[in-house]
Amino acid sequence: MDYQSVLDAIVDEVEPLVGEGKVADYIPALARVPVERFGIALYTVDGEVALAGDALEAFSIQSVSKVFSLTLALKKVGEQLWLRLGREPSGDPFNSLMQLEVEQGKARNPFINAGAICVADQLMSLSDDPKAELLDLVSTLCGESVAFDPEVAESERATGFRNAALANFMKSFGKIDNDVDRVLDVYFNQCSIAMNCVQMARAMAYLANAGVQPVGGREIVTPRQARRINALMLTCGTYDAAGEFAFLIGLPCKSGVGGGIVAVVPGELALCVWSPGLGSTGNSVVGMRALELFVAKTGLSVF
Amino acid sequence: MDYQSVLDAIVDEVEPLVGEGKVADYIPALARVPVERFGIALYTVDGEVALAGDALEAFSIQSVSKVFSLTLALKKVGEQLWLRLGREPSGDPFNSLMQLEVEQGKARNPFINAGAICVADQLMSLSDDPKAELLDLVSTLCGESVAFDPEVAESERATGFRNAALANFMKSFGKIDNDVDRVLDVYFNQCSIAMNCVQMARAMAYLANAGVQPVGGREIVTPRQARRINALMLTCGTYDAAGEFAFLIGLPCKSGVGGGIVAVVPGELALCVWSPGLGSTGNSVVGMRALELFVAKTGLSVF
Amino acid sequence: MDYQSVLDAIVDEVEPLVGEGKVADYIPALARVPVERFGIALYTVDGEVALAGDALEAFSIQSVSKVFSLTLALKKVGEQLWLRLGREPSGDPFNSLMQLEVEQGKARNPFINAGAICVADQLMSLSDDPKAELLDLVSTLCGESVAFDPEVAESERATGFRNAALANFMKSFGKIDNDVDRVLDVYFNQCSIAMNCVQMARAMAYLANAGVQPVGGREIVTPRQARRINALMLTCGTYDAAGEFAFLIGLPCKSGVGGGIVAVVPGELALCVWSPGLGSTGNSVVGMRALELFVAKTGLSVF
Amino acid sequence: MDYQSVLDAIVDEVEPLVGEGKVADYIPALARVPVERFGIALYTVDGEVALAGDALEAFSIQSVSKVFSLTLALKKVGEQLWLRLGREPSGDPFNSLMQLEVEQGKARNPFINAGAICVADQLMSLSDDPKAELLDLVSTLCGESVAFDPEVAESERATGFRNAALANFMKSFGKIDNDVDRVLDVYFNQCSIAMNCVQMARAMAYLANAGVQPVGGREIVTPRQARRINALMLTCGTYDAAGEFAFLIGLPCKSGVGGGIVAVVPGELALCVWSPGLGSTGNSVVGMRALELFVAKTGLSVF
Repeated sequence: MDYQSVLDAIVDEVEPLVGEGKVADYIPALARVPVERFGIALYTVDGEVALAGDALEAFSIQSVSKVFSLTLALKKVGEQLWLRLGREPSGDPFNSLMQLEVEQGKARNPFINAGAICVADQLMSLSDDPKAELLDLVSTLCGESVAFDPEVAESERATGFRNAALANFMKSFGKIDNDVDRVLDVYFNQCSIAMNCVQMARAMAYLANAGVQPVGGREIVTPRQARRINALMLTCGTYDAAGEFAFLIGLPCKSGVGGGIVAVVPGELALCVWSPGLGSTGNSVVGMRALELFVAKTGLSVF
Repeated sequence: MDYQSVLDAIVDEVEPLVGEGKVADYIPALARVPVERFGIALYTVDGEVALAGDALEAFSIQSVSKVFSLTLALKKVGEQLWLRLGREPSGDPFNSLMQLEVEQGKARNPFINAGAICVADQLMSLSDDPKAELLDLVSTLCGESVAFDPEVAESERATGFRNAALANFMKSFGKIDNDVDRVLDVYFNQCSIAMNCVQMARAMAYLANAGVQPVGGREIVTPRQARRINALMLTCGTYDAAGEFAFLIGLPCKSGVGGGIVAVVPGELALCVWSPGLGSTGNSVVGMRALELFVAKTGLSVF
Repeated sequence: MDYQSVLDAIVDEVEPLVGEGKVADYIPALARVPVERFGIALYTVDGEVALAGDALEAFSIQSVSKVFSLTLALKKVGEQLWLRLGREPSGDPFNSLMQLEVEQGKARNPFINAGAICVADQLMSLSDDPKAELLDLVSTLCGESVAFDPEVAESERATGFRNAALANFMKSFGKIDNDVDRVLDVYFNQCSIAMNCVQMARAMAYLANAGVQPVGGREIVTPRQARRINALMLTCGTYDAAGEFAFLIGLPCKSGVGGGIVAVVPGELALCVWSPGLGSTGNSVVGMRALELFVAKTGLSVF
Repeated sequence: MDYQSVLDAIVDEVEPLVGEGKVADYIPALARVPVERFGIALYTVDGEVALAGDALEAFSIQSVSKVFSLTLALKKVGEQLWLRLGREPSGDPFNSLMQLEVEQGKARNPFINAGAICVADQLMSLSDDPKAELLDLVSTLCGESVAFDPEVAESERATGFRNAALANFMKSFGKIDNDVDRVLDVYFNQCSIAMNCVQMARAMAYLANAGVQPVGGREIVTPRQARRINALMLTCGTYDAAGEFAFLIGLPCKSGVGGGIVAVVPGELALCVWSPGLGSTGNSVVGMRALELFVAKTGLSVF
């Protein structure tokens, strides 16, 4: 398929929409990103790349990083990870404490904030320097060096009261082993990584290729783990809009409040869209529309 | 692929497990079903059939009927159905009133009881005889006549206080248009249909074939509607275990407390397993295991 | 104390407020009551009566009836009543199903709808004709014959979906013994009784007099039961405003959506105010203000 | 009344029960208190004192301190305190985050942990040294110097993850103005104060005497404020057992996990019981029983 033409056509079609939605404004570094941006890139299992729009402009990956931290935790501890962490959709806004209370501090899945903080806690228990290991993994995945953004990480910390509440609440149920502030430091740093669409599509390509990086052939996770990460992305990857994404787009996706969304077409390609204007569910408005167009134009869907 | 060998092997492998779980016992007609049953059947998009075990023994389809009532409603009213009904996983046990209260009587999806009652209400508003239309659709889908089981329907009614609570609660929010008792009558009857695995696999084959019945070529729903029903099955089809099913099995599934589970492999086949012993999430224990084995043996998964 | 002067002064002072609030409009019989009404009456433990304003105009007692049904149940079954029914404030709007779900169908107290339905169920189990017994008790208490209003009762039934949801939900947890429709019939009828302020103040006087009717000296409940009913009124008698009532008024009170509120000054008197305009918590706006004035003028408060 | 004889009789009657319940064990300083202790003391509005049992042994006042911090906040800011803080019973265990989520971070009342943390935040905004002011008030009230216990305060901090979750959660809703750690420092210190039954009874006597200290005649709060604090104690002072206390005891009470309970008989006396064994609701088992006996023997009840 001529993916480049598909992406070019998408850029044309979403152009009138670019600027819709509301940029996340809870920290200055996100608030000052211009809303009028749209980038898209894909990376196939054959190593083919296509990109369009602002695909080379870096954005804050935020919650998309949860895929990386989950991958690292699965590499290190395997299925034991699930002893403390659920795999069910949350059915509530992404930072809800209510469900956590009903379920005694056990986070429902690794892609809600509570679950990602739980994963960060696991990484701390398994590594002397979880932040360095995480950066190393992400750099390996995208083939070039990435870095934390200290300003963003610090802003997240300074405003992250909801996340501090989640972490302390889980700790009160005995579900966090390490010091709350240090666990949150890992979490806030992982959210602060900046990447562009091309880097992100390349980094996620292992999920489209049964766990193996298309170029170089390094096995990141087992084929079964890759399928399972995809399954979690589809059922839990987009806050309280997972059903909507499955219904309208039909691909495993993970989104972030920076406006990035990654999507995986198993056996085919990984895709990244970015546009900072968010809708009511915290997902990029134009990004979602672009993914719908991509599916319509290519017929690629898991269903 | 030699599906018959696959099914035969699965029957052998699950044999030691058959009898695990607990038969639903809230009504006599379900309680007296012997737990030591296991059937499996599939129907491919080419019209190939394979079956093994107790695949010709009829069972009460219960919540699997929600796929049929949703299909009928989508045929009749199209996307307008979603004005009153959500498409998100519920994140709560399947009959929870709590979420319904938070969301002002709007059911989260058509596959939880509240949502299926809402669909039944829509069917009543759209048809003079919704029960007859539903039977007609199911009979068309499985190629032979099926019937309600009046004893089961009456038992459901006599013990269905939770469903009566759900229906009255939605009515109190103005989300049910018709008389509550008549809406519940539709719902309890649809649950009472008895089918066997072969009938069920054949009946669901349109979902594997872009909405078209493999034999005869009748279009039941549009390709997009078929994809969307599959998406809903994957995210919402198995009570509070949708994440678990996606993670372990990776196929759109819909289960019922009668012990039946249907699974769809888009583009390939529909599958039905049945074994009446239920696990803690209300899904057939042996049925789930059989689906895991099927995926492992065939490599078929949407992810 | 010259209670008549106090009541006269209150009528003068609230006069500018009369008409505030919103008349309950979910049934025609309540909706057509003119909002511009205010009555007040009291009955002392010495048999003294004082009244002012529209104190002789009958109103629908609605939830105030829960005091009578609780009294009847306590007379018949004593402390065993509490095996199935809680005594704690609900902390939620008066018809919330959420708390009922968390607490497995056990209503938190007899003055929320769920609890009153549970009391009605107990009465049915204890009496061949609970409606007749209830009318008999209320007639005895107010010294003249009172009656159900069949139009109101039927309207309550025809619109009472929330109450039907509550009753069916409790039944699904095994917390209702009798037929749901018959239990609701008792409940809807008790709500339909019409009384005026003078009748109501006289009827409630036993609660101010250690359980004994001031005139005639008939013991209705034991002194300890009277204290406990007062305690329940103070902590649970005014929907989600019990804290507000205790804080601002400081007397045991029970209100109804018909705009009536009864208050008890233990050892002194029972008081009834009525004004049909309701505030956001479902309590009479002018009635609450009148009670605040009464407490300020008389210094009577339990605190 | 011969209060000394009453207290002596109570000590005799509860003697077989002393040792029941479970000492709070979440911090060492509480865990090592022997369960076999019972003290009782009262202080009348005439300045009469009576005491029995271990009434001179100091205990950790814990949540009883919430009465003092509320009193201080009311003195400093008056009714404006209620702009951010509710006055309704919570209907949930005392540290529940669920209700806080539904109500957007507004604590329901000053006697649940969330509300007391909110009061501590108000004190910080109103004072350069809220801890010193609080100690000063409590010392004034009990007529001798009291102190924080730094070991207890530090233990509270080191294990107070639930409270840290509450504070951060309220902060995320903009309901806490000051630094979370500093607010919690005030709260943990106020909980750490140690007092004995006699000191506590004397300290609370202003609430029985219309806001004025019986000896010396200093006005602590206005008569109306005193009534309102009593009202809050009755409706909200004993965690999720406020209804039970009102029903069984019928007096405004405030309890703490150190095993202390204060009770107020308006116009008569303040009473303090202490016994460290707690029941399922977090209240002293023997303390509650002693209060029931006191009410039965004296006939003192607000109802």
